[in-house]
Amino acid sequence: MSPVELEQRIAEHVRDIPDYPKPGVVFKDITPLLADAATFATVVEALAAPFTTGAESGSEGTLAVPDVVVGIEARGFILAAPVAHALGAGFVPIRKQGKLPARTLSATYDLEYGSETMEMHADAFAPGARVLIVDDVLATGGTAAAAMDLVAKAGGTVHGLSFLLELGFLSGREQVPTARPHVLMTV
Amino acid sequence: MSPVELEQRIAEHVRDIPDYPKPGVVFKDITPLLADAATFATVVEALAAPFTTGAESGSEGTLAVPDVVVGIEARGFILAAPVAHALGAGFVPIRKQGKLPARTLSATYDLEYGSETMEMHADAFAPGARVLIVDDVLATGGTAAAAMDLVAKAGGTVHGLSFLLELGFLSGREQVPTARPHVLMTV
Repeated sequence: MSPVELEQRIAEHVRDIPDYPKPGVVFKDITPLLADAATFATVVEALAAPFTTGAESGSEGTLAVPDVVVGIEARGFILAAPVAHALGAGFVPIRKQGKLPARTLSATYDLEYGSETMEMHADAFAPGARVLIVDDVLATGGTAAAAMDLVAKAGGTVHGLSFLLELGFLSGREQVPTARPHVLMTV
Repeated sequence: MSPVELEQRIAEHVRDIPDYPKPGVVFKDITPLLADAATFATVVEALAAPFTTGAESGSEGTLAVPDVVVGIEARGFILAAPVAHALGAGFVPIRKQGKLPARTLSATYDLEYGSETMEMHADAFAPGARVLIVDDVLATGGTAAAAMDLVAKAGGTVHGLSFLLELGFLSGREQVPTARPHVLMTV
């Protein structure tokens, strides 16, 4: 499937919800995409594709397989966990404050709709691990930057960032200048 | 891998956290299991195994592939989404109240540590869909029973329940008498 065909496929399965979670915001609801087996599979493979050594080389080429894939609570888990499984990598959750039971590292960030602290276990992966960050949406970039910060604090190497959607008008890419996020569709 | 070897493998990667989330409770932390690529892959395959028509038949035999796999926020997403992907099924989230943007159905249930309302989109799947419910832990069974209730309310057929861990001393199985939960390890 070409990038253009993939964008078309995604667009057909993302639902606009006006005035959610607040007036004036149009929320991109990806649940119809997740529920459609073929589209869900296609999206998971496409998020993983640039990070599969030996895979068919696309225009971006491919990188080595990561040791772990980090997913961000809660919607991020839904894409990051199957990407980890598809790549044969481990999975590491970044969670909201107070949800992880062992010793954590924390980072505070600005959300599209407020501010929040998120945490990762301090022993989540071995020092030097190659870490791929996967999330559903690159919006303001605050979450992505905080996730990169947590990975660095834990001694990992940010191997890549992969997103289903990018909200281009929020310029989130500018918050992660050292990364070159892989994005399936920009809206 | 035999069921006994699988239990041994799981036991080696689940960490006991005493007095979490409150004094006297021993929390089963599955994050080391998720982070270990080989164990994560083994667990995902084992959760899916009984629901793969044509797979090697184990002692329980196999059932048809579900149309969708339902995962319960938040930890449940981490196992249910890769199981959906591995089975070639769609994924449907059950979320905490107020987190889903379109029209929802709701069910209130007793948690191991309190009570909560959870929601699923009313149009999450087509009527008559075969639905597999996957979660990390079968504890009191309240969440599982509520998930079954939501699936029925939306017109689906509960095709099966699959859990990584069962806390046998909480007798959660008694809350889902019409199901025969598939469990990888009982503690």
